[in-house]
Order: sequence, then C-alpha cells, then structure tokens
Amino acid sequence: MPELRFNLATRDWTIIATERAKRPEDFAGKPAAVSSDSAANCPFCPGRESKTPPEIYAVRDAGGWKVRVTENAFPALRPTGDPRRSKDAFGFEKMDGIGKHEVIIESPDHEAIIATMTQAQVDEIYLAYRQRFIELARDPRFESVILFKNHGRGAGTSLHHPHSQIVATPITPRTLRDRLGIAQDHFDETGNCLYCDLIKMEQAAKERVILETDNFIVFTLYAPRFPFETWILPKFHHSNFDTISVEQCRELALIMKKFLEKLYKAIKNPDFNYAIYSAPTKERDLEHFHWNIKLFPRITSMAGFEVGSGIPIVTVVPEAAAAYLKNA
Amino acid sequence: MPELRFNLATRDWTIIATERAKRPEDFAGKPAAVSSDSAANCPFCPGRESKTPPEIYAVRDAGGWKVRVTENAFPALRPTGDPRRSKDAFGFEKMDGIGKHEVIIESPDHEAIIATMTQAQVDEIYLAYRQRFIELARDPRFESVILFKNHGRGAGTSLHHPHSQIVATPITPRTLRDRLGIAQDHFDETGNCLYCDLIKMEQAAKERVILETDNFIVFTLYAPRFPFETWILPKFHHSNFDTISVEQCRELALIMKKFLEKLYKAIKNPDFNYAIYSAPTKERDLEHFHWNIKLFPRITSMAGFEVGSGIPIVTVVPEAAAAYLKNA
Repeated sequence: MPELRFNLATRDWTIIATERAKRPEDFAGKPAAVSSDSAANCPFCPGRESKTPPEIYAVRDAGGWKVRVTENAFPALRPTGDPRRSKDAFGFEKMDGIGKHEVIIESPDHEAIIATMTQAQVDEIYLAYRQRFIELARDPRFESVILFKNHGRGAGTSLHHPHSQIVATPITPRTLRDRLGIAQDHFDETGNCLYCDLIKMEQAAKERVILETDNFIVFTLYAPRFPFETWILPKFHHSNFDTISVEQCRELALIMKKFLEKLYKAIKNPDFNYAIYSAPTKERDLEHFHWNIKLFPRITSMAGFEVGSGIPIVTVVPEAAAAYLKNA
Repeated sequence: MPELRFNLATRDWTIIATERAKRPEDFAGKPAAVSSDSAANCPFCPGRESKTPPEIYAVRDAGGWKVRVTENAFPALRPTGDPRRSKDAFGFEKMDGIGKHEVIIESPDHEAIIATMTQAQVDEIYLAYRQRFIELARDPRFESVILFKNHGRGAGTSLHHPHSQIVATPITPRTLRDRLGIAQDHFDETGNCLYCDLIKMEQAAKERVILETDNFIVFTLYAPRFPFETWILPKFHHSNFDTISVEQCRELALIMKKFLEKLYKAIKNPDFNYAIYSAPTKERDLEHFHWNIKLFPRITSMAGFEVGSGIPIVTVVPEAAAAYLKNA
C-alpha cells in the first residue's frame, strides 16, 4: 500500500511509493540503463497488451488500437485504503496512498513522438486526456487530478514508448493551493482572473507570444523556472480542465502539436515535461482560477541554489526564446 | 546586469543570468562536457589564482592556501544597481539583479572531497562558511543569504574542483517566506519552535536519527523530497546561522564530515546538494524559526509529476535509509 506522509515544516505531502520501493543498497552506484527502451520487450507495443494492467480506454480502427489507457503497472497511488489521516505515537502524520495512476499510451508506434505524428493521432491523444480527466475528476475519493508527460530520459521517462500519465490524488497539492491563493487575492483585489489579465498583458506586449488560435495562446514565461518554459492557456475563462468541449480539445491538440513541432525543430528534440493544471476537482467554476498547461524543457539541471532557495537561475532571455521558437 | 523578474502567478522571483546568458540556439543538442573538469586547466587549482576574480578570504599556511574565497567569475547577481522594483508598460515587474555570489574553494587539491579530507581541512571550510555568512548577512543591501554546495554533475556542478557557493539576494525567496509562515503559525498555536519540536519528535522516534552530538542532530526526513533527504539541525535554538560560534562551527564541521563519510560509503559517492537555511538577514533572534541544513542526494530525477504537482514520489523508505546510513 503506498503511503502519503505529511511534512510538518513544509506542509507538503510526499508519496512513499512502496510499489516501486527499493532497498537503500539499490541506490549504491549509478542506475543502469532501463532495458525496456527497445521495442523488443516494450510492454506498450502492440502484441504485448497482456503485459499491461487491464485496458481502461482505447480508440481502435481496422488496424488495431491507436491510443490506449491502462493503469500504471507500478502505480504511485492505488484506489483502495482509508482516507483518514492518522498520527503515530510521536506525532508524525500519514494516510494511505489512495488515488489512481493511469498511463495513456499515445501511439502503437514505439518511436512516434507528438511533434511528428499526424494531427488526427494527436487529436486522439488529447481526446483521451479529456475523457480520463473527466472520469477521474468525477470520483468523490479524489481531490486533485494532474495530467503530465515526461519526454526523454532527462525528463524522468523510464519507458521510451510515447506515453502520458494521469494521477488522481486524495489531497490538494500545496503548490496548487498556493497558486489558488495568489489568484484569489488577485481576484479580490482587482475583480479579474489573474490568468485572464496575464493573457491580456502578453497579447499587448507581443514579444513572448509564440502561437495563438481563436481559443488558445502559447507564450514563453516572463519569469520562468526553466529556460524556454512555455505556458499554454485557453483564452476563455474556466477553472477546471474537465469542462473542455470536444471541439476546444481538438483546437488544443492542434496548437500543442504546432508548438511541439517548433520545439522539436528549434532545440532538436529536447527532453521536456508538460502538465495540465486544473482547480481541485470539487472546487468548480471558480471565478479566480484558470486551467493551464505548463511546459518545461529539461535542458539544464537544477543545482543547489535552485533546489535550496526556490529561486530559478535562467540563462536564456524569455523574449529571445520566444522569437527563436516562433521562427522555427 | 543580471535581472530579477517577478512571476505574478507564483510570486517567485527568477534570476535572468545575463552574465551567463546563452543564445537560444546554443541549447540545440545536448550540452558538451565541460572542459575544466580536468586539473590541467582548472581555475581553482593552485598556481592559477589569477584566473579567478580577486580573493575575498583565504586561510594559508607554509604550504600555501588551504581554503580560498573569491567572487564567482560568472555571478548570478552583482553588488551594483538600483534596488527599486519597476514595471514595464504592460505591467511586468522586475528589478536589477543586486546581490553577491561568491565561491568557497574547499581545498587546493582538485580531487579532494569532504568525505575523505582531514577534519582540520573540513573545519577550515566551515569556518570560511561562517565568516562569509556573517559578512554578507551584515550588508544592508541584502535580504537573504543562502550557502550551498553542488557535488557531482547530477547535482549541477560545472567545475569538478571541490567548492561551495554563497549567494546574497535582495529579496526573500518565497519558499523561505512560506517556511517562516508555517513556523510562525506553529509558534502562535503551540508557543514552541516547530524545529525544536521536530527534534524532540525525532529523538523520541529514534528510527530516523543517524548521528547526534551535544549540539547537533542528523536525521532522514519523515516526508522527504528526495530519497535519503537528510536534515542537520542545531539542538540549540537560533534563527540565524551567522550567530554560530567558532566552537559550534567546529562541531558542525565534525558532524557534517561524519555524515558525508557515511553517505560516501553507503551510496558510493553520490551526487548531492546541501544548503544552509537561515532567517532573512534583517529578521533576527526569531522565536519561531531555526536555522538548518538540508542535504539532497540527487540519485533520481524529478519527472513531470513532481515538477508539476510539487508532490515528491520517493522510492526508499526513510527509516530504511536512516538504518542503512547509520550502519555505513
């Protein structure tokens, strides 16, 4: 049973992933290359469907499945257990690691990447995101849903086959709570959504905007955490990603693919993470929060200053990054 | 001139390090190995003192310098500029990157590491930490001082020669402000310092304590951010590191060396960061905050879930980690 533990000095919860737990001595020496990089024994490749947990969702045509969702074989959280917090004899607080951890296999092709897929395939991936997000957000056991993608070894991928992941948690992450508080203060002060205001500021400034469609905007961040950090925002206001319509979702898939193509060309297929940020599942139709996607290229590593202080040091000017990506 | 930019959605400041700025196209492709890994052209090796900025502090004996402090040749912040915040026409806020960024060269020996140095040498390093921290904390231009060490490529080191760094910032990092707020709430509620309470809890629980001396305690964290995350705390209450006495500083050097030896043996010289956390320089003798050192082994990488949600997934149980390190 995975465990969630509360850090009383930071008020963050940590997942102790017992399903993937290692003995301390396993960390001695550098980790070996993961064998499943090759298609020869990849559990996500067609023909090896029995190697994954049962299928939750799939899109199929005459040629077989195009996108497939299963539970993660080594889930960080599991959908059983007691949601109550408990303290040990010394005052340390924990709870069962209740949640859901699913894998969205983005293509049957082991070597496919979104930047070079057909638009129709990317549409199916994003429609799968939508469907799974809606279902998990509806589950009363979960407080928060986060959908994310790790691309490349430097971004934390352990399996090469293209996939995204979605995790439902029984707690609201402190980071999200902090962002909600900042946005709430802004709304209380100005009467506006902070993210709607940010979009207007970026549209006026122009110099960081990379792409725009009727309903979405893509820009590099004025004060980024990572070089080339890029935010993708809906221009329409809504706090919860799971309210996105099928049509909006296709438009999102279009702009994401266009952006990822530019990134692929400009920085030569960099490692990256992206994540969809949405309000807590039971806090709906918030005036002050705005769902968003953040993309973090992982081309530099966080050193002691960043990890220690939380202040990022970024060595590329965001306006130059935007111009470079725009022209790619 | 480095620049500090304010992120209005996270309320973090980011350093745009113009001194180290790269063109966007420099990020295309993987970074090449840094040439100064070898002693042959290392600017920190004896005989190449002219390759570093002027010396700020040094300890010498008949054989030459033993520890040497200079400004960073590519400082993230510089001690000149205007401390006032300004907004551009669109509302984006920034200020000059005023601060100080120094390098503490820990030994003349290019290959030395604290785990295997003499205790006398480690004492000199920690006394240099103390001296530089005191001086920077006294400078009225700076609000915060952070001292940190990057050991190994995976921890962000760009120069192999053993060194630590100290950065003085003109702002209080939001992360530190958040920790101060949590500790303040705990004090208001209980009348106790949260960290003093944590020490008592860890002493009672015993199972995460690795080392203890009269004045210091070392334990793995109950809810860590990284596998084997370890905190080193003074058992005496003080909020500001720069109040440490010479005798206490020698005792700290002793316990740090003992712990780093264990880490070196147990996990075979892992990459790590450590950082000294101290209250903002002008907030002194706080009842509710307690200076501390956090050590983060960098043996796993943060993937999209951690970066996105702020919830760490840790695959080694902290009690097992403590037992393993204790016995090393």
